[in-house]
Amino acid sequence: MSDRAELTEKIVRLKIERDLSWSGLAAMAGDLSKEYVTAGLLGQMPLPRAAAEAIGAYLELTDYEIKLMQQPPYRGSLPTAVPTDPLIYRFYELISVYGTTFKALIHEEFGDGIMSAIDFRMDLKREANNAGDRVNITMSGKFLPYKQY
Amino acid sequence: MSDRAELTEKIVRLKIERDLSWSGLAAMAGDLSKEYVTAGLLGQMPLPRAAAEAIGAYLELTDYEIKLMQQPPYRGSLPTAVPTDPLIYRFYELISVYGTTFKALIHEEFGDGIMSAIDFRMDLKREANNAGDRVNITMSGKFLPYKQY
Amino acid sequence: MSDRAELTEKIVRLKIERDLSWSGLAAMAGDLSKEYVTAGLLGQMPLPRAAAEAIGAYLELTDYEIKLMQQPPYRGSLPTAVPTDPLIYRFYELISVYGTTFKALIHEEFGDGIMSAIDFRMDLKREANNAGDRVNITMSGKFLPYKQY
Amino acid sequence: MSDRAELTEKIVRLKIERDLSWSGLAAMAGDLSKEYVTAGLLGQMPLPRAAAEAIGAYLELTDYEIKLMQQPPYRGSLPTAVPTDPLIYRFYELISVYGTTFKALIHEEFGDGIMSAIDFRMDLKREANNAGDRVNITMSGKFLPYKQY
Amino acid sequence: MSDRAELTEKIVRLKIERDLSWSGLAAMAGDLSKEYVTAGLLGQMPLPRAAAEAIGAYLELTDYEIKLMQQPPYRGSLPTAVPTDPLIYRFYELISVYGTTFKALIHEEFGDGIMSAIDFRMDLKREANNAGDRVNITMSGKFLPYKQY
Amino acid sequence: MSDRAELTEKIVRLKIERDLSWSGLAAMAGDLSKEYVTAGLLGQMPLPRAAAEAIGAYLELTDYEIKLMQQPPYRGSLPTAVPTDPLIYRFYELISVYGTTFKALIHEEFGDGIMSAIDFRMDLKREANNAGDRVNITMSGKFLPYKQY
Amino acid sequence: MSDRAELTEKIVRLKIERDLSWSGLAAMAGDLSKEYVTAGLLGQMPLPRAAAEAIGAYLELTDYEIKLMQQPPYRGSLPTAVPTDPLIYRFYELISVYGTTFKALIHEEFGDGIMSAIDFRMDLKREANNAGDRVNITMSGKFLPYKQY
Amino acid sequence: MSDRAELTEKIVRLKIERDLSWSGLAAMAGDLSKEYVTAGLLGQMPLPRAAAEAIGAYLELTDYEIKLMQQPPYRGSLPTAVPTDPLIYRFYELISVYGTTFKALIHEEFGDGIMSAIDFRMDLKREANNAGDRVNITMSGKFLPYKQY
Amino acid sequence: MSDRAELTEKIVRLKIERDLSWSGLAAMAGDLSKEYVTAGLLGQMPLPRAAAEAIGAYLELTDYEIKLMQQPPYRGSLPTAVPTDPLIYRFYELISVYGTTFKALIHEEFGDGIMSAIDFRMDLKREANNAGDRVNITMSGKFLPYKQY
Amino acid sequence: MSDRAELTEKIVRLKIERDLSWSGLAAMAGDLSKEYVTAGLLGQMPLPRAAAEAIGAYLELTDYEIKLMQQPPYRGSLPTAVPTDPLIYRFYELISVYGTTFKALIHEEFGDGIMSAIDFRMDLKREANNAGDRVNITMSGKFLPYKQY
Repeated sequence: MSDRAELTEKIVRLKIERDLSWSGLAAMAGDLSKEYVTAGLLGQMPLPRAAAEAIGAYLELTDYEIKLMQQPPYRGSLPTAVPTDPLIYRFYELISVYGTTFKALIHEEFGDGIMSAIDFRMDLKREANNAGDRVNITMSGKFLPYKQY
Repeated sequence: MSDRAELTEKIVRLKIERDLSWSGLAAMAGDLSKEYVTAGLLGQMPLPRAAAEAIGAYLELTDYEIKLMQQPPYRGSLPTAVPTDPLIYRFYELISVYGTTFKALIHEEFGDGIMSAIDFRMDLKREANNAGDRVNITMSGKFLPYKQY
Repeated sequence: MSDRAELTEKIVRLKIERDLSWSGLAAMAGDLSKEYVTAGLLGQMPLPRAAAEAIGAYLELTDYEIKLMQQPPYRGSLPTAVPTDPLIYRFYELISVYGTTFKALIHEEFGDGIMSAIDFRMDLKREANNAGDRVNITMSGKFLPYKQY
Repeated sequence: MSDRAELTEKIVRLKIERDLSWSGLAAMAGDLSKEYVTAGLLGQMPLPRAAAEAIGAYLELTDYEIKLMQQPPYRGSLPTAVPTDPLIYRFYELISVYGTTFKALIHEEFGDGIMSAIDFRMDLKREANNAGDRVNITMSGKFLPYKQY
Repeated sequence: MSDRAELTEKIVRLKIERDLSWSGLAAMAGDLSKEYVTAGLLGQMPLPRAAAEAIGAYLELTDYEIKLMQQPPYRGSLPTAVPTDPLIYRFYELISVYGTTFKALIHEEFGDGIMSAIDFRMDLKREANNAGDRVNITMSGKFLPYKQY
Repeated sequence: MSDRAELTEKIVRLKIERDLSWSGLAAMAGDLSKEYVTAGLLGQMPLPRAAAEAIGAYLELTDYEIKLMQQPPYRGSLPTAVPTDPLIYRFYELISVYGTTFKALIHEEFGDGIMSAIDFRMDLKREANNAGDRVNITMSGKFLPYKQY
Repeated sequence: MSDRAELTEKIVRLKIERDLSWSGLAAMAGDLSKEYVTAGLLGQMPLPRAAAEAIGAYLELTDYEIKLMQQPPYRGSLPTAVPTDPLIYRFYELISVYGTTFKALIHEEFGDGIMSAIDFRMDLKREANNAGDRVNITMSGKFLPYKQY
Repeated sequence: MSDRAELTEKIVRLKIERDLSWSGLAAMAGDLSKEYVTAGLLGQMPLPRAAAEAIGAYLELTDYEIKLMQQPPYRGSLPTAVPTDPLIYRFYELISVYGTTFKALIHEEFGDGIMSAIDFRMDLKREANNAGDRVNITMSGKFLPYKQY
Repeated sequence: MSDRAELTEKIVRLKIERDLSWSGLAAMAGDLSKEYVTAGLLGQMPLPRAAAEAIGAYLELTDYEIKLMQQPPYRGSLPTAVPTDPLIYRFYELISVYGTTFKALIHEEFGDGIMSAIDFRMDLKREANNAGDRVNITMSGKFLPYKQY
Repeated sequence: MSDRAELTEKIVRLKIERDLSWSGLAAMAGDLSKEYVTAGLLGQMPLPRAAAEAIGAYLELTDYEIKLMQQPPYRGSLPTAVPTDPLIYRFYELISVYGTTFKALIHEEFGDGIMSAIDFRMDLKREANNAGDRVNITMSGKFLPYKQY
């Protein structure tokens, strides 16, 4: 297991042992969103130096671990190509069902190109509803047109 | 190839030949969203009878094809487990990178459970931006708590 | 191996060493069924706090382990996509053989939608039979209709 | 595509064109359950001669097709090892999550062995519920003990 | 690695270090065949208590290891779906080549059903032959007819 | 689909249409066993010229088809690496469970080497038994020692 | 096979029959590079209208085919995840060997982000060399920094 | 994990702890490029003796580790056949999209053969651009014609 | 199926119908070896013009088919990554067993690099032997050293 | 990791530390070829007792390790079904390209059967050549005819 994966496991363990929350940890990271910081603590995004040092000090991480959190990681958080966890699988299922719909509608609106997964932000929140609250996720990614050359 | 897949190919062919648009076709389906209707025309959702008949008449489909559009399909629109098309792959990549983040934050906000992919709606639109317009997707799925029994 | 997987192995080891039974352990968990508690002890469901503390005390687990049992786990209990163990494979085979039948009959009875695997309970019991006793499994999952939008 | 698979597609097509139902077709098959007959019409079980002839006559199938329905088929109704259709996937997910629980509880109750998927019957019905009706599936399979020799 | 897999490795190591043989170990297990006992020592079958205790005492195993040998294991002895070892691959090849022949002839002789791999025994022996001795394997499995219901 | 695969489908179709049996067809092939001839008719073994001509004449095959039956085929009768048909899967399961046992016992009896799947014969027959008849399969393959050089 | 894939096959067939060249066809497409146009003719890029009409007229394609060439295709030109063709495999091998090197050096030079495969151009040319001419490929992709949010 | 993989992890760890850079390390390796040396330090290329000793001394590696860096490694730097890291995936995507184009244009220019991935060099640099700097990669591989014989 | 694959099937069919041999066909191809020409006729190598025309005329192929035989094909003659045909599998097995040995001995003799599969020739012949004739294959591939740069 | 795999790693480590060569080690094994002994030291072949003891004494292995080298191993030296190392991949590529050619020519020369990978020997040597030395590999395997029965 890579050092970064071990660090992720350590952070998850500390979070459980000390009854911490992801949003609480994210609040130590300045202006960054809870989505970005959580992804960083789970080993998928580098944290900026100040955020890494603040959270690292709170969690009593080593200097090396604090530096490690600032590195671009080898990304990919899932152990299998098709995720087995039901919560995560539902997202995979949405792509399986709606993938060609995404493609059709984005091309219709924007022409040939993609929605960037790099120049991207998202926001996950609770949507109150009498029939049962809903998970609301807004994704915003820059449209990148294919360049003809 | 199944009859439904052949029907999807036929609809796509007609759309190109006649210079139609997905949103134009969806407008014939009454109150349904363009996202739902496009998914239906691409073989992933059943269309309600009135919508199937209206669009079917416009496209000069056969009676059997119009009935076929009303059946719940065998879902799954992608030819490979990991999609090869770059536009669709970016969504897969988001799950690969953010999957554990989705899980962490939804559990923190709602407890154990999932976001439904069945009691679900989404809205895909253009978000104007000086640095380049963005694709904006809002997903809303009912939170379903795991039942203890 | 994740901490949760190690905890599962530890619980299985203790059960063998001390000649315990799953139903005996489940009886310490209050009103919960043996099916739910066993899934929890095998790392697939979170146990409610009282159940985790009662069973944890009996098994002399650490505080961290007792907290860990209360977390929603990364689910998926099988090491391969197609299970190799004959007992578990028979269930996979039933889906392979009867999957399209499930789909046809549920759609016929309920319309488009699914049987929930989240709002779900099951009961596994012995069915006495002169030609050899039978395993009887009753599954009950809420029907979730696809929402049109 | 094999002849049996083509026959299955033909039967599904006729059912849609003529507005038939699986239970209606099954009712022509004498004492057989709707589950068994539907599986047979979907190409997964052989139909007894009388059932094949009654349904075949009603659907105006050829003599060869009527004989074909009586053959033990090459079973396996799904196009991928992990099913993509959400309704069918939920059953796969149940095995992924509960597989080791099934194993633990069946061994605890019966000793080493399996639940037969051959000497097996099942019953799928609606379970009325104020919070939303439920799909109720009862499976009954003979317990087969591993023979020591 | 599971405890059972570690125990299997330990037994294999002891067998090599002490120059033991599988048939010699099996002889300590009372009336059980060498095939069954070897499968048990390799982690695929539970040994009856007396056999586990006799062999365990001889190999100086711990009490836990002796109990572990009596548990139904998570079966599947091969590290890959298609085996790489040439001796084992030849058996896989026989199924690949003769699989449809097995199916055709068993159905012709017995009707629809399977040969049980649970109510099963086998015997592996040397068959003397002038052109080179042969491996002779006799398999006997109960025929299980598919139940119509 | 290759010509040989199409020929196999044609032979299977003729067998059903004319109510033939594999052993009946094999009886036209002179001294060859029903196992070898069935494998040949199912596209896995070449038939000798006389057998191909006798069976071909009876089935009214073309000259090309009769020649085709005499060619060594591209072997492999199963559409997936792990077979989905329950009858054939049981054989796969036996290898999965007993593979390392086969290896251990053959090496113990014969030393390093394999059981040939080429210089191989098998016999499949009914074994009467009061508790239910059994499928009895005897395999005999030449032991081939690894050559040291 | 999709209409676009059939069109690709038709274009390749016409190119062979008429002794055409990719660069010759590309020359009809105005200012576009031979790399872009060839990718378009091989079904991986949409051609601009003028290019599609010029080449389509020269190849005597139908109106539908000319429109089809202007659609963003479902991309992915290879039949297997790991390519089998030796020429194409060498590129896969370069990623397998140099993938982590690309990652290390791009992050060192630019920080966290990626090289765009959308805002991308390439140029493939012959590099004369006494020891044997070389293939020279220059790739240029916009660096896209991961956005922190 | 192999010794070489462990050495790679150690080097990456030292680089982070000491705030080193790949190009800085490469500068100790004499005339070798940063691309080659980085690949060597990441376990994909053997370093020449002088380079291994210079860098090894600077990083205080053991004698064995310095020798190990001089061995041709078992190449392949990625944990999955389809890379999950977005930066590396973009290169895979380029092959998926442009693979058949590479093949068409190289054959058109050179005839049948391949671009060598062995007699190969590459150069990765920043390309300044007002619309955002670009990653510029030049690859040069000897063309190797298939030999007819 | 591609045109080239269809042509391969046609050639194989003609060879069977007319009782031709691969070496007989190869003899029409001038100085080329039977190995190269057979690979060409099986769709894996382009034939030189004279050879394609001579064999094409003899087999009464169309002009397009004769041109098609001269194109570099998309190589890869096997339908699965691990071949199922026993004859071909044995070669795969040799790589599985001896792969690391090839690597060790070639590096020991030549240093870092590979044996070319492009600048390659082979010769397959019968080796008479009292204990049974042997297949003798000699492979000769240029050693290509990895270039340091 | 199995004991045998650990032993292989230990031997490789010792070889590097002590600057040994495979052919030097093989020379201690009496009449055995360097190919066979290297395969044995790499964990793919059992070494005869005298060879294991001579090499084991020289490398100061333990008694258990020396016995372990004499056991038939679980064969298969590669970590992935399709090898990633370029040297080894070239052999896989040869099978991918020439597999059907091997099959065609061996059947033409010998009839139906295979080249044994068990009664097999090979010789790998340098072939001097002005245009660059070549790797020359001669394989000799007994032809094994399929037995008709």
